Formats: sequence, structure tokens, C-alpha cells
Amino acid sequence: MNECGYLRHLRACNPPVTEPFLPWYIEDQVVGRVRPALAEALRAHPEVFRVEATHLVLNPALDDFESRSRALARVGEALAQAGVVTPPMGEPYPVSPGGREEALCVMDRAVAAWFGVRSFGQHLNGYVRTERGVEMWLGRRARDRLVYPGRLDQLVAGGLPWGVSLEENLRKECMEEAGMAPELADRAVPVGLVSYNRVAERGYRPDVLYCYDLELSPDFEPRNSDGEVESFIRLPLDEVARLVRQTDEFKLNCNLVIVDFLIRHGHITPDHPEYLALATGLRQPLRNDP
Amino acid sequence: MNECGYLRHLRACNPPVTEPFLPWYIEDQVVGRVRPALAEALRAHPEVFRVEATHLVLNPALDDFESRSRALARVGEALAQAGVVTPPMGEPYPVSPGGREEALCVMDRAVAAWFGVRSFGQHLNGYVRTERGVEMWLGRRARDRLVYPGRLDQLVAGGLPWGVSLEENLRKECMEEAGMAPELADRAVPVGLVSYNRVAERGYRPDVLYCYDLELSPDFEPRNSDGEVESFIRLPLDEVARLVRQTDEFKLNCNLVIVDFLIRHGHITPDHPEYLALATGLRQPLRNDP
Repeated sequence: MNECGYLRHLRACNPPVTEPFLPWYIEDQVVGRVRPALAEALRAHPEVFRVEATHLVLNPALDDFESRSRALARVGEALAQAGVVTPPMGEPYPVSPGGREEALCVMDRAVAAWFGVRSFGQHLNGYVRTERGVEMWLGRRARDRLVYPGRLDQLVAGGLPWGVSLEENLRKECMEEAGMAPELADRAVPVGLVSYNRVAERGYRPDVLYCYDLELSPDFEPRNSDGEVESFIRLPLDEVARLVRQTDEFKLNCNLVIVDFLIRHGHITPDHPEYLALATGLRQPLRNDP
Repeated sequence: MNECGYLRHLRACNPPVTEPFLPWYIEDQVVGRVRPALAEALRAHPEVFRVEATHLVLNPALDDFESRSRALARVGEALAQAGVVTPPMGEPYPVSPGGREEALCVMDRAVAAWFGVRSFGQHLNGYVRTERGVEMWLGRRARDRLVYPGRLDQLVAGGLPWGVSLEENLRKECMEEAGMAPELADRAVPVGLVSYNRVAERGYRPDVLYCYDLELSPDFEPRNSDGEVESFIRLPLDEVARLVRQTDEFKLNCNLVIVDFLIRHGHITPDHPEYLALATGLRQPLRNDP
């Protein structure tokens, strides 16, 4: 490992964008960004996309939520069959120029990842107050997971499909990932968000992670039921902070959720030399420039 | 009142910059921004400032903290005598291209306000958990204060002079403004920051407010001793939120500290239509572009 510290994870989540991406417009708003090769493939679907040299536009005749969503589903299937994108997962995700509630249509989660669409998720910090100080529950991701197998993760974390309320989705994830009853999940407090503009393998990736804190009783024991977690571990906050600073044990974006927790709980203090850079860096405006 | 809502306060603190400001460099880093009229006045001090058409540079012969600070003190006195800036207050403030700890020299607080220097302060949310929910202690600013007389303010808030630790300064402010013993002040938890780039009457104003939460016992009663507070009031959080949304009762930047509190305590939730704009908007990167 060459670099240490908290800030490197924020930098890794917000790399300089060196490759060209073409902004994707619905009407006059940018809702995504695609690689030139994908733009070329979209020329086969002129009834849905108008592909220009510098950008693409959804056919303005598709002028409501339903017609746009149906057209994008057809294109997604065709692209997957042609091997251009990964096959649809059956989870509709919002396509939005702003927040999650401002979606103009939906798109399958797997396909959306290639279109540089804004993605929204929920990450829950499960912690316990002990006589020795705060301890945090962490999950270790199953070895067969597609991304970051075997890495550490928040106790509960998941993407936010369209058409499900934040409460419902958090309850579902808390039950599946950690065996929590709905009454316990409902005690989670929404405490802010972390946002970044990443470049992932599949493309441009503007992400918003809604963060939650849930104080657990000392005898709470998580139990996974969806196979996504290999094991759980409860660690003192100092050790969690050290793992973030000195290792790459965590799934990349989970580091940011923990830095946010450390700031909110007074574990990283304002006299930390990188406090200003960390606090502002955790809340990157999502790009919507042309 | 024409506009309602939380977001208008963030907008007011981050207005579009329509007037020209000249960046002020020390070596190759921007540490401030001045109006053209002030730049003209600085031509009378060529041993300290080199004034160009597009920017100003501190004389590179002033190459350490002490020599720069002494030269700036002399210029500040001269400018005040000429009526160009307000008279020095005797409080040294950091002049920094980054965080508070990275200061390259100091400048008097009153003079610095005309030079668009980054300013750092501490704002403390004093709150009580009651059976009826969270209640917040607020101060009403004395009627004879220079800025925002008679407006609502955090229980404790103040600027951060150079050469004082964060803990010391918070203790001092807690004692003077609210009559808190040092042991009580030390229980305040640093929970993050709010940052913005404002244009004030005296000039460009990049601000960082370090935020603190302090849970108080139900029988705590603040007592002011420095004459800066006219009276104190304890209000339910719902009412505090309403005042922020619907009125201009608060000193402008105090609104942002409360919006941050409301987000961190789950009072403003992620399904609020402006959640993303609020969360990212509270942490504006401080400008350091040329």
C-alpha cells in the first residue's frame, strides 16, 4: 500500500474524468453520460435515441414516464442480447436529472449502470455503546459476490429501486441482510448522505448514499439470510477508523460512509488537517453540466 | 416574505458573484479576493502588494509568517486611517489557502473581512431531550450589535482567532455567551461543518462554520455575560424548523447550521424533495480558483 489516510478514498470515488463521455438528455436536462462506443450502438435505435456528435437525446415523442420507460426497457433488452450491456436484473431504477423523486422514467438497474444514470442507495451504520466506547457492526461480503467479494461492508446496505419507499426498502434490507425485525429497522435515524462522481468499469457513476445510524443493544447479533454476507464482526470504532485509514479492507464507497460517521460522532475533529477537505469532499455535487 | 423553505438560505449564502473581485495571491496560492477599489488603494503600499490588472500578489520578499503578518498589520492600520477599511479589532485571524491550520500569516479580523479571506467559526446547537421531543436553546442577539441585531442565533457562536485551540475558544464562548462551566462546554461534540461563499457588504466572504451538538439537562438555564445576547428561548424542534422555513428571524448563516442539525437528527428525511440539494449545498467547496 502506497497511500494512507481517509482522503484517498474520497479521491478514488471522484477521479478526474479523462475519457470522453457523451451527456444524455431527456428534453433539456442531463440524466446520464455514456461512452462513445455505447452511443454508436444506440444508432441502431433511432426511434428512441437521437445520437449527435457531442451528446444524445431521447426521442422527444417519448413524452411521458411510461412511454420512456417502455422504450428504454426494449433498448436494454436488445443491447443485452447484442452483448453490449449486462442482462437486465428486473429491478427498475429511477432516471433523474435531480433527486430520486424527480425521475423522468425508469430503467433496469443493470442497464442503467452503463448509461451513467444517478444511483441512490441506503447504507446503515449499526453501532453499540459499550463501556469501552462505541463499537460498530460490519459485514464481510460473500466470496461469490460480483463486486468487492470478501471485503468489509456496512451492517446493511443496498440500492434503492423505483416505486419502493425508503422505509420499506430499509426494512427489507435490514431483514434480509442482518435478520432485523421491522420494529428495529424503523429505529434507524436518517443522518445525511454521501455523494460522489465515480468512473466505474461499466461507465460514469454519480452516486448518492443515504446514511442511517442505528444504535443496537449490546446483545444484538445479526443473522444474514440472503447469502450476500459471509460473516459479521463487531469492532471498536478506533479499529474501524484504522482499517479505513490504513487498508483497503472495505468496499470502496463504504469508506466514505464511515468517514461521515466519524465526523458526525466527533471521532474526526475539526483540528484534523484534512477536516475541511473531508467534510466538503463527502458531499460532491452530482454533475449535470453538458 | 416572498420565498419559503430551507433552500433559500443556502442560496442567499452562495449568491452568484456578479461583481469583479481580484484574487489575492501569496506565492502561487489564492488566499483572498478584493474589490477593484481596494486593489487601487493598495497601490500606495508597493513594498507589500504588487497590484496587477487581474490579481494582486504579496511581495515575495515577505517570505515567512512573521514578516507577512507584520506587513499586513501596517497596511491594515494605514487603510483604516484612510477610511478605506474598518478599524482593526486587535484579533488576529488566519490567512489561509486551505484549512485553518494551513495559515500563511495572520491579519486583523476587521481588516480581513475586506480582503475576502477565509473565515472560520464555531456554532453550538444546545438542545434538550424532553418527553415532548427535542427542544433547542436559542439566543436573541442584542439590539446594539453591528450585524443582525435582534435576530435569533445559536446558543453559542463565535469566530475563531488565530493561536487559540478549538477547545479553548469554545470554552471561552460558552462561558461568555451562555454562562457554561468548562466541564459542560467540553461535552460538546464536533459534528461537522457548514461552508459557503458569500458576498457581504465588506466584500467576498468564504466561511467555514464548525458545528457542535451539546445535549443539555432539562434544568439548564443559559446566562449571558458579554452583552451580546439579549435573551434566551427554548423551542420545540418543529417550531425552530418552521422559523427557518417561513421567516427570516435567524441571523442568515445560523439557518444553515440548523438545517444541518435537522438533517443529522432525522428531522429532514431523505424523501424531502430538496434533500440532495440541501445536503450537498451545506458543504460548498471554498473557491480557490484564479
